[in-house]
Amino acid sequence: MTYRFLKGHGTENDFVLLPDPDGTVHGDLSAERVRALCDRRAGIGGDGVLRAIRREDRWFMDYRNSDGSISEMCGNGVRVFARYLLDHEGASAPLEIDTRDGVKTITLDGDLVTVDMGTPAVFDTTKVTVGDVVHEALHVSMGNPHAVAFVDSLDEAGSLLTAPGHDEALYPEGVNVEFVQRRGEHHVAMRVHERGSGETRSCGTGACAVMVAAALADDAPRGTTYRVDVPGGTLRIVWTDGGRILMTGPAVLVAEGQTDL
Amino acid sequence: MTYRFLKGHGTENDFVLLPDPDGTVHGDLSAERVRALCDRRAGIGGDGVLRAIRREDRWFMDYRNSDGSISEMCGNGVRVFARYLLDHEGASAPLEIDTRDGVKTITLDGDLVTVDMGTPAVFDTTKVTVGDVVHEALHVSMGNPHAVAFVDSLDEAGSLLTAPGHDEALYPEGVNVEFVQRRGEHHVAMRVHERGSGETRSCGTGACAVMVAAALADDAPRGTTYRVDVPGGTLRIVWTDGGRILMTGPAVLVAEGQTDL
Repeated sequence: MTYRFLKGHGTENDFVLLPDPDGTVHGDLSAERVRALCDRRAGIGGDGVLRAIRREDRWFMDYRNSDGSISEMCGNGVRVFARYLLDHEGASAPLEIDTRDGVKTITLDGDLVTVDMGTPAVFDTTKVTVGDVVHEALHVSMGNPHAVAFVDSLDEAGSLLTAPGHDEALYPEGVNVEFVQRRGEHHVAMRVHERGSGETRSCGTGACAVMVAAALADDAPRGTTYRVDVPGGTLRIVWTDGGRILMTGPAVLVAEGQTDL
Repeated sequence: MTYRFLKGHGTENDFVLLPDPDGTVHGDLSAERVRALCDRRAGIGGDGVLRAIRREDRWFMDYRNSDGSISEMCGNGVRVFARYLLDHEGASAPLEIDTRDGVKTITLDGDLVTVDMGTPAVFDTTKVTVGDVVHEALHVSMGNPHAVAFVDSLDEAGSLLTAPGHDEALYPEGVNVEFVQRRGEHHVAMRVHERGSGETRSCGTGACAVMVAAALADDAPRGTTYRVDVPGGTLRIVWTDGGRILMTGPAVLVAEGQTDL
C-alpha cells in the first residue's frame, strides 16, 4: 500500500504527517507502521507521527510517539499540524485543532505559529543530580511533569546520555529535566532530557515549564514575553493575564511525497 | 525551488537520492544543500546524497557525504543507486555505474543487489585500543583504510562514542575500525567505527575488509561466501578467483516526493 506523507519540524522537533481525512487510509494505524515511518535509517525519520483526520468542523491530531505509543499532545507537533492545515487544507487562523488533550487554539504571528498550551501547575522545589552535583529544581507540570534547574552554564547538564537523577517518589513515572542558563533580560537558553527519549533538540512543554520558572524567579508581570533558546531554534513564550501559556515559534514542512512503509 | 527526491537504504546506510539526468536541476549542488537534505531533524535525513546524472550510455553517481564533502564511492550507496535505476529509469542488470572511483558493475540476486567492490590490499597487523585493552588488528585497504580486530564478544568494542586508539603514523588520516565476532562457519558479526562518522549501522567497505580478514584467518578457498551481520542487516560477501570482492545485500527505496530544501 502506497500512501501520502509530509515531513516537517518545529525547532527541529520533527514529524511525519499522514493526511487521512476520512480515517480510511490508515484504519487503526499500527504501532509497527509508526515505528517504521519514524525509523531514521530504514524509514523516513521523525520524533513522532501526526495523523490528520477530519471531524465535522475541526481536524483531529492523532499523535503517536516514535515508539508507536499514543500520546495526548505535542506542543511543537500541533504547530506543524497547523502549518499543514493552513498550507494544504484551506484552513485560516485562528483555528482550533482537536487533540486527545482537548481543543487547542492556534494563531499566527507572521510566519510563526502560536499554540495555547493551557495553564501550568507549579509545585515545590526538588533536586536533580548530574554525576555527583546536586541542583535545586522547580517542579512544574504542563500536563506532563518537569523539573527545571537553573545553571551558570549549560555544560553543567553533562552529556545527558542518561537521565539526571531525580526524586523517584515525586516522579514515579519519570520526569523531563530542563537545565536553564540566563542569556539576558527575559531571555534564557535550555537543554532538556525527555523521559523515554533522551536529550532532544526541542521540547515544547519543557520550554513552557522553563518560561514559568524564569518568570516566577524574575517576579515578571503577566504578559511578559520570554525568549527561550532550545538547541533546535528559538521559541517565544508568554504567560497571559488569564494564566495561560502561549508558545510561538517556527513550523515548517520540508518534504511531501508517497511511501509504502 | 522545488525538486524531486527519493529516500532509500542498504542495510540501514541511508541516502537521499536526487534525480538530475541532465545535471541542470542542481547545477553545482552546494554543500549547504547536501547538509540541509541530510539533516535528520530539519531536513529529510541521510548518511549522504546520491545524485543521478545521465552520461551517454551510463549513469554517474555524484556521491556526497552528509557534511557536504565529496566522496569517491560508497558500497551501500551504489547498490541503492542501482535500485533507483532498475525501478525508475528502465535499467536492467547487469549494469555499469560511473563513480569517481571508476565504473562499478552491478548484478542482481533475486531482490538483492550485488556490487563489485574491487580488489583488497592486505598489509601487516596493527593494534587498536578500547579503553586500556589492546586488540591486535589486520590492516586492510578497500581503497580506504581499515583495521579489523577479532573479539570474543562485540561488547568489547565498548560504546564506540569515540574512535578506538590506533597507530597514527600508519593511519595519518584516520582509520575505520571493525570489531568482529565469529557466529559460525563463514559467518561473522561486526560493529564499526567510521572515521568522521562514529559508529554506523553499516559500512560497505568495512564489511568487505572484515570478510577478507576472516577468509585469511580461516584459510578459506577463494569463492567462499561469507555472511557478515552488521547492526543494520546482513551482507553476503565473496572473494572471487579473480581476486575481486563482490558484496550482496538489500537495497530499498522507501519514499519518493518533492522538497524545497
